Amino acid sequence: MNSFTEIPGGVTAPQSFTAGSVFAGIKATNTSKPDMAFICSTVPAVAGGTFTTNNVKAAPVRVSQANIRSAETRAIVANSGNANACTGVIGIDHAKRMTKATAKALGIKERQVLVCSTGRIGVPLPIERMEEAIAQAPKVLSASGSLKAAKAIMTSDTHTKEIAVELTLSGKKVRIGGIAKGAGMIDPNMATMLCFITTDAALSKKLLQQAISDAVEQSFNRITIDGDMSTNDTVLILANGAAGNAALRDGQKDFDRFQNALNHVCCALARVIVEDGEGVSKYVTVQVRGAKSRQDARKAAEAVANSTLTKCCWFGGDPNWGRVMDAIGYSKARVREETVDIYYDGLIAVQNGTVAATPFSKLKEVVANKRFTITVDLHIGEAEYTVFTTDLTTAYVEFNMGE
Amino acid sequence: MNSFTEIPGGVTAPQSFTAGSVFAGIKATNTSKPDMAFICSTVPAVAGGTFTTNNVKAAPVRVSQANIRSAETRAIVANSGNANACTGVIGIDHAKRMTKATAKALGIKERQVLVCSTGRIGVPLPIERMEEAIAQAPKVLSASGSLKAAKAIMTSDTHTKEIAVELTLSGKKVRIGGIAKGAGMIDPNMATMLCFITTDAALSKKLLQQAISDAVEQSFNRITIDGDMSTNDTVLILANGAAGNAALRDGQKDFDRFQNALNHVCCALARVIVEDGEGVSKYVTVQVRGAKSRQDARKAAEAVANSTLTKCCWFGGDPNWGRVMDAIGYSKARVREETVDIYYDGLIAVQNGTVAATPFSKLKEVVANKRFTITVDLHIGEAEYTVFTTDLTTAYVEFNMGE
Repeated sequence: MNSFTEIPGGVTAPQSFTAGSVFAGIKATNTSKPDMAFICSTVPAVAGGTFTTNNVKAAPVRVSQANIRSAETRAIVANSGNANACTGVIGIDHAKRMTKATAKALGIKERQVLVCSTGRIGVPLPIERMEEAIAQAPKVLSASGSLKAAKAIMTSDTHTKEIAVELTLSGKKVRIGGIAKGAGMIDPNMATMLCFITTDAALSKKLLQQAISDAVEQSFNRITIDGDMSTNDTVLILANGAAGNAALRDGQKDFDRFQNALNHVCCALARVIVEDGEGVSKYVTVQVRGAKSRQDARKAAEAVANSTLTKCCWFGGDPNWGRVMDAIGYSKARVREETVDIYYDGLIAVQNGTVAATPFSKLKEVVANKRFTITVDLHIGEAEYTVFTTDLTTAYVEFNMGE
Repeated sequence: MNSFTEIPGGVTAPQSFTAGSVFAGIKATNTSKPDMAFICSTVPAVAGGTFTTNNVKAAPVRVSQANIRSAETRAIVANSGNANACTGVIGIDHAKRMTKATAKALGIKERQVLVCSTGRIGVPLPIERMEEAIAQAPKVLSASGSLKAAKAIMTSDTHTKEIAVELTLSGKKVRIGGIAKGAGMIDPNMATMLCFITTDAALSKKLLQQAISDAVEQSFNRITIDGDMSTNDTVLILANGAAGNAALRDGQKDFDRFQNALNHVCCALARVIVEDGEGVSKYVTVQVRGAKSRQDARKAAEAVANSTLTKCCWFGGDPNWGRVMDAIGYSKARVREETVDIYYDGLIAVQNGTVAATPFSKLKEVVANKRFTITVDLHIGEAEYTVFTTDLTTAYVEFNMGE
């Protein structure tokens, strides 16, 4: 099924996409690192996306949710250093001015531009400086500009996050590229997960939305660092059909292969976001199976993944399966204590709800690893769900204690 | 309304109650600190209680939930050092043997005994040693034994938790006493909140249950340290009528005064449990008002109180109201961003969803205090809810990282 190969190039790997960055001086600190990114399709494209479900939504989220309804999308403009969240009506005006300036610079329509922001909240954008910077977009956009865009959206990330894949659909080379920044509410001033994906595949706007929703469900919705959800989280995808493949249709084998490749792009970026979380020392996969429903499996997995106590003991290398039992117990998933089995990397720790035969020292060896998997089998149904998470460290607390 | 006075004596302040402790050697570590507590009514009493809603319930919780249905209750037996949780059918048998041994020692019926355990989970109780220790109960029970019982149930608590109050009802002196141990899932091996209350007031079993449910709702259900809920959390109350007051009836002024005094006992113990949480440095009251419903107010308050990020920044003395906005946004409470006001000890930090005029330095002064209150006014309804919580510190992580 993995009929794709990874290639370099990020969001400019697909044909007829350009990207680049400029410096607008958004951050209070003295830096000359570019803080605005552009991704542009040189031909008409369709867009899809998923947005934070937080009731407190940043202004750019609201503006992008409106503009993404447009039949045609051409560009994404994004800035780091300021989230433009909790900024009231001025914030909405500023987000619109970002799309307007980008449209003007690129000679496209305002509603063809999607906008994202990440960084400090509650502070108005230095919009005039940003408008001046945006005017330079045509000069910086390049067919090899992905890395520059990836760099410009970084906040507390320690490295850029970029991937591209290539596959053949109806005899044509099709590419999917992505960049992302993390690290899920890890930044001291409210961070954000942003992910921008491009593809030169041909498919309808409706099918593209279905594909990105499915991919996000398999990837970004499965990662959790601290259970907090940002006001700005956004995933956007542009598809411009420049590959010249026969337009994908749902149910087709080719569409399944495209979906599979897109899932890979999203999963790879989601994983690297978690692994680059500040103050994180361990990466833990929590699988719940044998649940009555998928929703139950999800509740149980997320309770284990978000428990302060399970996360602290992973940091300390303590298996402490009692905390896993406790978390699934309060998760509101249907659980029959006496049928629960728990495994650490395949070693059984709990059988029928109580301690199993595996020596504690063997479980400690598992939890001493940088990566391990905790599998909970509820044995009361067929449903399963998997979450990818981290430990909770003293470094995390220090990083997030602010000022 | 506060027509009661605090008095010494804890659970043995009310008439015809005795308490005491014995050493059974339950903990693996070498200690001779008594680890079993008894509370006994020397005359017939009625019992009420609330138990963890965790689907994974310790064996003593299951046994006490059965025995509390008995019309008459005479004693509580509790141990520290072992939670008797996740111990399968053996655990249930052991919890029953604890009640049986206590009944035998005190010459009462097995179903008149309630049982609690707290400490390490997944390890069978050393039940033979405990049965031997329980046989000594008659020798250690005393009308001034409250403090000994309070000491014997401690786990990671740094001090005993005890209170008693006295009030006059229908011309009779009525007393309510309580002891508790914390500190809400703070113990490295899964801790538990246990609270035992006694009163010599006369009231029906049904009204006693109503009174304790209401008091718990105002107190223990309002505290949160890390959002985790233990497998063993239990609050028990015994009422023996020895004060000779006219039996309380619902709707009566005297009953309101009793309820008020009972609420005070529970709130005082709840507060001291939080304040004795290991690794805690700040005590934060989170009030949400102006919500559409009480349930909404509760969701919003608990989201703020349980956010890893809000708790880290309180530790660091950073007001970071953006994290409060973010938490109420994802809390699933109905929220209109543009009507939200947030106050720090009465100083307005957020007005209409965006930054207010109070200088940041003033907000920092508030968060530098050991105790402060964050008030969120959603301005879309009349409902309110208050939660009492703590910060998240590096010491908490170190304490809970285990082994």
